Amino acid sequence: MIKKIEHIGIASKNIDESLTVFDKLLGRSTYKTEKVASEGVKTHFYKVGESKIELLEATSEKSPISNFISKKGEGMHHLALYVDNIYTELERLNSLGFEAIGEVKKGADNKLICFLHPKTTSGVLIELCQEQFE
Amino acid sequence: MIKKIEHIGIASKNIDESLTVFDKLLGRSTYKTEKVASEGVKTHFYKVGESKIELLEATSEKSPISNFISKKGEGMHHLALYVDNIYTELERLNSLGFEAIGEVKKGADNKLICFLHPKTTSGVLIELCQEQFE
Repeated sequence: MIKKIEHIGIASKNIDESLTVFDKLLGRSTYKTEKVASEGVKTHFYKVGESKIELLEATSEKSPISNFISKKGEGMHHLALYVDNIYTELERLNSLGFEAIGEVKKGADNKLICFLHPKTTSGVLIELCQEQFE
Repeated sequence: MIKKIEHIGIASKNIDESLTVFDKLLGRSTYKTEKVASEGVKTHFYKVGESKIELLEATSEKSPISNFISKKGEGMHHLALYVDNIYTELERLNSLGFEAIGEVKKGADNKLICFLHPKTTSGVLIELCQEQFE
């Protein structure tokens, strides 16, 4: 079941500039920065209520973030929804015609994540995520 | 002060299709539909945790939503942040170099709203909103 907006992912062209902008806009600083090598990104998280704002910095030219920016410009990249059980939720969504991009994998911020293809979600790249308990 | 993500605004090219998609994705229905004549949009709201997802349908070809879709395609359009006092917050943000688009006005869902120009916010169209008490 979908519980809340976990975060909004924002693709940044110039991370130093974006960090300055969001520090001022939100009146707070990031609480965590983390590299996700498998995705070719460095992530910077702000807490906002029960959700987060994640600034995404490409760490290579092959990163999906570089690709997104060259196509659409910088800005909102994905909408992450928090689910209590990512496997049950994916099964439910697959049966309704949504298409996952790849398998469930480990993402930033100690989460299990999976993306849904935007062609099945009105053009919005949706990430499902669940806390990873180890 | 910025308290939470109030909603994510999503520009839809075909609202019937998008409503079907989000009903299935979120496992719930919209709780409110409202026309905002001044913005040339019809809005459809889902509750998700303490936030909302707002699907935006253009009601004319001159609507900012039609304009956005023809430039960028359908998808995430704006990020709305809930503030306790929109006037104090705008004053703070103006003094930091952010640029408001026009004045504070009445938006959907009984809110006072104001947008910040994306050129000052790393390409993200930010909406500030506050409950309107009358």
